[in-house]
Amino acid sequence: MNTNNRTEISTVGEFGLIERLTADIKIVNKETLAAVGDDAAILAYSADEEILVSTDLLMEGIHFDLTYFPLMHLGYKAAMVNFSDIYAMNGTPKQITVSLALSKKFCIEDVEDFYRGVKLACSQQGVDIVGGDTSASLTGMAISITVIGSAPKGTSIKRSGAKETDLICVSGNLGAAYMGLQLLEREKIATAGKDMQPDFAGKEYILERQLKPEARKDIIERLREEKVVPTAMMDISDGLSSELMHICKQSNVGCRIYEERIPIDYQTAIMAEELNMNVMTCALNGGDDYELLFTVPIADHEKVASMKDVHIIGHIVAPSMGKAMITRDGAEMELKAQGWVTEGAE
Amino acid sequence: MNTNNRTEISTVGEFGLIERLTADIKIVNKETLAAVGDDAAILAYSADEEILVSTDLLMEGIHFDLTYFPLMHLGYKAAMVNFSDIYAMNGTPKQITVSLALSKKFCIEDVEDFYRGVKLACSQQGVDIVGGDTSASLTGMAISITVIGSAPKGTSIKRSGAKETDLICVSGNLGAAYMGLQLLEREKIATAGKDMQPDFAGKEYILERQLKPEARKDIIERLREEKVVPTAMMDISDGLSSELMHICKQSNVGCRIYEERIPIDYQTAIMAEELNMNVMTCALNGGDDYELLFTVPIADHEKVASMKDVHIIGHIVAPSMGKAMITRDGAEMELKAQGWVTEGAE
Repeated sequence: MNTNNRTEISTVGEFGLIERLTADIKIVNKETLAAVGDDAAILAYSADEEILVSTDLLMEGIHFDLTYFPLMHLGYKAAMVNFSDIYAMNGTPKQITVSLALSKKFCIEDVEDFYRGVKLACSQQGVDIVGGDTSASLTGMAISITVIGSAPKGTSIKRSGAKETDLICVSGNLGAAYMGLQLLEREKIATAGKDMQPDFAGKEYILERQLKPEARKDIIERLREEKVVPTAMMDISDGLSSELMHICKQSNVGCRIYEERIPIDYQTAIMAEELNMNVMTCALNGGDDYELLFTVPIADHEKVASMKDVHIIGHIVAPSMGKAMITRDGAEMELKAQGWVTEGAE
Repeated sequence: MNTNNRTEISTVGEFGLIERLTADIKIVNKETLAAVGDDAAILAYSADEEILVSTDLLMEGIHFDLTYFPLMHLGYKAAMVNFSDIYAMNGTPKQITVSLALSKKFCIEDVEDFYRGVKLACSQQGVDIVGGDTSASLTGMAISITVIGSAPKGTSIKRSGAKETDLICVSGNLGAAYMGLQLLEREKIATAGKDMQPDFAGKEYILERQLKPEARKDIIERLREEKVVPTAMMDISDGLSSELMHICKQSNVGCRIYEERIPIDYQTAIMAEELNMNVMTCALNGGDDYELLFTVPIADHEKVASMKDVHIIGHIVAPSMGKAMITRDGAEMELKAQGWVTEGAE
């Protein structure tokens, strides 16, 4: 470990670090079509299909809190968010591997609960568990899931294809999962050490968005049915603002989105009000939405405008125009990639 | 988490737990040829090739100790042991993804050191880094690596093909990496808090086996050149004894190996002597060898007998005869899957 000459990771952030680490990577295998920088890598092993691979490493205390996150839900979510990465490439998830590291506080029944959730997600989405590994951990739980999927040759959708005048679309609504998390955190503190139950009445939807997210396979299917081919796509895991900036950067374009068009559920708005938080900030920067963000040619306007649960929130502009949101009062607010900041201790 | 009705994981062990978790898994995708139970999953996405996927989750304090394990070596080893899983299937590793979770004690320079090791291993073996992820961790470092490789259709070698009269072969020598680990642990204690350097003179080989293992691509190439097709194969990561029992179980056979034929380097023997350990126990149960264990038809005896760095250590017998080692004095000793026990705290 370096003791002198230390640069803290926080000075460049997660994305800055990944860029720095992967900048000089040269691809040597003809089977490697696309590597770092999308929701999944694209591999060309087959003449007819592209193979998609994505992976996630989740740490207790950073990505999840077992005080209020039931293990079965955790297993379900860990699998589902990986499927979401494959859908975000316009592919179909087919296989996953599941590795767990567990400290001694976990018993067999805990691991079975976790697996029950993974298996439920897999059976719902037609995915096979093809590898598993468990090992010890000094503290807490670590989960590593890798998902493998496929798309017909040439149909994978990357982040780099957005073009000027394209429409920017999102599925579902934003900020709900983040509000669910805030609620869980509030009730954790409120009930700590007391003989009382958390109060979740009327908040079921935002809780479910946090505890049991669903990958938007339905949107991918609808786009196919309507023969709409997005020019760029990704899933929203770190917040709309941050993800949209990824698309703009990799497509070398700018964007305009409209505050009034950002879809927000009323439970999300009520919860933000209760917590005295700005709901738009939550919708732009809250994490864990797992909705799809995509761009389509303006010629598809009619099709996407009439598509259930799809919202046109803005359009792509020239790179020189920057990345901004037009607020309800007509002001231009520069988008910032605040993302979903997770900080480790020690 | 379950508080009542707890069964400790230690009562069934890692392999028992995996069996219990994966026993009821039904495969639904035609692309899934082989799932849990081998060094890698076998996927059939292509008409000509089988795709192999394997994954590892490594935890600080369980799988590695950064007091004596330089980060660059750790990166090299983490990549190399994954390549080894693909070679163990008779495949060629092509891509890896690398995820890291890091507590605040790590700086950018540390991560760069780690990646330098990963990149060195990748460039030596012609593997592309296709995905990367870093996140925070409350304590220590977690590493998750997934490797993707391929083999021409029908040429992947599983653990389940060993047949009676087959010869049992291992590459290289055994127990050296385990002795290297013992040496590092001894010197860690001896030098703790003192202004002195660890004493590694004359022990370079066992240290290198622990700190810089090499995946045996050369053996796979030699077998191909000589047109020897193993009936079963795996790599030795948890000790010969444990791995041989996996092959016997999955092939439904028994085995006889001969103590006098187990290849042991003289540095391994000297270190065991110094530490007052039984060298044969270390060779049978020490971990981290990353040598190849394979069975070949007896008709290939001449070819493998003359193969450089390949040792015939025994043969496959009927399942009713059990799994045993014949000691130097002619006694029969039942093999036990002691494996490489790693225990977590908390």
